[in-house]
Amino acid sequence: MRNPKKIRSEMGWSTADRIGVRGKDLVGDLIGKVSLGDVAWLELTGELPTPAESVLFNALMVTMVEHGMTPSAIAARLTYLGAPESMNAAVAAGLCGLGNVFAGTIEGSARMLQEALAGAGASPDLRRVAADVVASFRATKALVPGIGHPVHKPIDPRTPRLFALAREHGRFGDYCRLMELVAEEAERASGKVLPVNATGAIGAIASELGFEWRICRGIAVMGRAIGLVGHIVEEIRNPVAKEIWDRTDDEASEDVRPR
Amino acid sequence: MRNPKKIRSEMGWSTADRIGVRGKDLVGDLIGKVSLGDVAWLELTGELPTPAESVLFNALMVTMVEHGMTPSAIAARLTYLGAPESMNAAVAAGLCGLGNVFAGTIEGSARMLQEALAGAGASPDLRRVAADVVASFRATKALVPGIGHPVHKPIDPRTPRLFALAREHGRFGDYCRLMELVAEEAERASGKVLPVNATGAIGAIASELGFEWRICRGIAVMGRAIGLVGHIVEEIRNPVAKEIWDRTDDEASEDVRPR
Amino acid sequence: MRNPKKIRSEMGWSTADRIGVRGKDLVGDLIGKVSLGDVAWLELTGELPTPAESVLFNALMVTMVEHGMTPSAIAARLTYLGAPESMNAAVAAGLCGLGNVFAGTIEGSARMLQEALAGAGASPDLRRVAADVVASFRATKALVPGIGHPVHKPIDPRTPRLFALAREHGRFGDYCRLMELVAEEAERASGKVLPVNATGAIGAIASELGFEWRICRGIAVMGRAIGLVGHIVEEIRNPVAKEIWDRTDDEASEDVRPR
Amino acid sequence: MRNPKKIRSEMGWSTADRIGVRGKDLVGDLIGKVSLGDVAWLELTGELPTPAESVLFNALMVTMVEHGMTPSAIAARLTYLGAPESMNAAVAAGLCGLGNVFAGTIEGSARMLQEALAGAGASPDLRRVAADVVASFRATKALVPGIGHPVHKPIDPRTPRLFALAREHGRFGDYCRLMELVAEEAERASGKVLPVNATGAIGAIASELGFEWRICRGIAVMGRAIGLVGHIVEEIRNPVAKEIWDRTDDEASEDVRPR
Repeated sequence: MRNPKKIRSEMGWSTADRIGVRGKDLVGDLIGKVSLGDVAWLELTGELPTPAESVLFNALMVTMVEHGMTPSAIAARLTYLGAPESMNAAVAAGLCGLGNVFAGTIEGSARMLQEALAGAGASPDLRRVAADVVASFRATKALVPGIGHPVHKPIDPRTPRLFALAREHGRFGDYCRLMELVAEEAERASGKVLPVNATGAIGAIASELGFEWRICRGIAVMGRAIGLVGHIVEEIRNPVAKEIWDRTDDEASEDVRPR
Repeated sequence: MRNPKKIRSEMGWSTADRIGVRGKDLVGDLIGKVSLGDVAWLELTGELPTPAESVLFNALMVTMVEHGMTPSAIAARLTYLGAPESMNAAVAAGLCGLGNVFAGTIEGSARMLQEALAGAGASPDLRRVAADVVASFRATKALVPGIGHPVHKPIDPRTPRLFALAREHGRFGDYCRLMELVAEEAERASGKVLPVNATGAIGAIASELGFEWRICRGIAVMGRAIGLVGHIVEEIRNPVAKEIWDRTDDEASEDVRPR
Repeated sequence: MRNPKKIRSEMGWSTADRIGVRGKDLVGDLIGKVSLGDVAWLELTGELPTPAESVLFNALMVTMVEHGMTPSAIAARLTYLGAPESMNAAVAAGLCGLGNVFAGTIEGSARMLQEALAGAGASPDLRRVAADVVASFRATKALVPGIGHPVHKPIDPRTPRLFALAREHGRFGDYCRLMELVAEEAERASGKVLPVNATGAIGAIASELGFEWRICRGIAVMGRAIGLVGHIVEEIRNPVAKEIWDRTDDEASEDVRPR
Repeated sequence: MRNPKKIRSEMGWSTADRIGVRGKDLVGDLIGKVSLGDVAWLELTGELPTPAESVLFNALMVTMVEHGMTPSAIAARLTYLGAPESMNAAVAAGLCGLGNVFAGTIEGSARMLQEALAGAGASPDLRRVAADVVASFRATKALVPGIGHPVHKPIDPRTPRLFALAREHGRFGDYCRLMELVAEEAERASGKVLPVNATGAIGAIASELGFEWRICRGIAVMGRAIGLVGHIVEEIRNPVAKEIWDRTDDEASEDVRPR
């Protein structure tokens, strides 16, 4: 009854003496010749990046690698405390928290931009598109993704740097411009300071680079996986998870625990 | 009673207008200037890599990115099928499987080499050290990590390439030599074909680069996190997880299911 | 500047000779006296269940424990293949896939019912509420959660059993009635066969039991965690993950792999 | 070349109108009739438990459900903070930390007992077996699993309760006796206070119940999955994760952050 479908993948293969990675020969074409960030581009697109693509794509991921003692990093360290045999599971625990609140806003801003410009024609009136976008978010009381930041005020210092790189490498197009206009419009409509933040800039530049919004969270995942390994390495040398646990446990049950 | 300990981290910090990553300024020093792989080195060591370190370290991680439809990759795809809102959780599920059987052998070979050469003095008799190592594994019937491969026979094509790079960049030292001698000795003792495999070569070169064995699994974790994002991207475009599920479920309950 | 907040939890505490769990003494009140399912209720509500609550709540979780070779179960088995040292991580990988597509529909149906009846007054016209609900889902082309099933047609056999239990124990109220009317209305509006499915019935009964929609996914998580341990136990005795891997890998790269 | 193997599972199946769970009819035999803990036994063994098995098995799992603000619970809460759309992923993150340090000791003590008594004949001299076990752990400087506790001194209050239940239900056999003797012997040899702790008692009783050591970590996984859902429910009502994050982040970078 069920119509079986052929299972097919172009990611990689191996034979006794060769290994293929997205059409390249791992040993002859990649190892020692192509950097990790460029192989990431190959994995996602099937091609090696141009120099401009390489600079921008590496920049996006580098921005996401490290942000100090985030909830993800603390969760990874606490996990390692209980399972030091499984650094991989500690990083996995950290990645589980890269959800809608943090990394999801890259996906959200890319989606907002891509849906707004889909079918907007050749020379869209970007200011008007921005106004429509902001109005539709405000109508459902949803937060506009990619703008505002609790710490980085009045501007997020990563954004001008990322947008300058995009300009320098010829990729500051309508997605980036629309992102800026959305922030302006949201500030105007709300009366709040809402600069484009790093995830907004990344969502816009990823859109310029041709990444569908559905895969943009992957930029955070790739960068942060590296950062989480870094936190486990520091945790091994200078452990803090036990102290966090002890303090939390002591304080949390202070009122209910018998003495 | 408990003696509180200061919680301290040098990974990163942020203020309103600046972000620090391991002593560097994210915006001024890293974004657009340093590639993802080199930032990974920074995360692990606190320094940017020399050119030789950069080539070798990127090569180790690149080797781990992609290996086709591994159990990890299939698990990530199946996870995405049920939770397409959480690409991050799908990658996390894949990382959970990078345990002792696969990525753990990098850790295992680095540990074997580092423990064997710790306190072995300035000019160890490497052949003798190798014989002792192999004998001690055989005494407990444990597998020697980092040698042999079910598919890549009689040699693992990644190993000569990785070791050639190590030589070229002045990092083919005692750890690498010992790894080769361990393989020779194991072949002699067992009568089997047991070439140094990729995880053995990576464990040896990581040891040359100064990485403690406890953190060597992180090389696989960083590389494979990227590869798993790649598999999710392909799964979005050309889904196979549902077909794997349907076939498995149909066949698995064939004999016990009423008709 | 930041206003520190007291960290407080009533979940549990321990001293040298006692352990408290949600106000009960673990040793004196729970071990050997209260079953696992009833302790789950205690965890979620802070009270032990009445007999009626116990029967219904256990029934909801039992319904979710096992459903054969689901994507979650296969992912857990594949994870265990690579990390047999971490059964816990294999179960974790399986749970990562209990997202919007599967377990999320319990949450979705509970949310739909609770939002529809919030502020609907003392004696709502349920048929009209159902019509409004279905119309609002259809307006955004969203699937109505909790109805329809690809295999269980024309009815999902779990639903009449669960609803009969709810009636028997005096908990078949407006949420359950509304769920049935939503299904009727959706069938009428779409012309398709859309019976209340198990996740719809669970979402409705959980609402009758007083669980906020936000926590209803937890019913699936608790049940399925047990089922996933069961799958790992079978995998240890009768492994199938390697066969799934081998077949998938062979077929997936058939066309691109050199021979 | 490869010899394909039939994929087979007895866990569950479904047809249009029926669902089978380990040979039982879900709707007719289980829902509303069998409690969650007893279905867990069914999942692991293929049979429903006897009354004695039910009491003991539920007692083991209940012991593991809740232990306050453990590293696992904090990690789950921090994960939920970033990904509130995925309660399942938050629980998964918590389970990742149930590794060798905590839950692994159930596995470790069960393994120790089962390996010590395998082939020990019909009437082993348990005191001598205990002495050999302790000596072999001490010879490799490994910790004997299942004894000693940082908080519960001089005895772990759960152990006498669990062992009393085992006696009451006719399951206090050689595994339990050996566990007690191992603790005595370890105290004698080390001069420290090392009572049988809860994981030691659970490992021993699980062995009496016929569970192979390899699956004993599952008892902790099933219990704790329920406890972690409880913590997320409390986190929703009374959030503490943000406060833990803020305090940790502030303190961790105090010395390195510019002012």
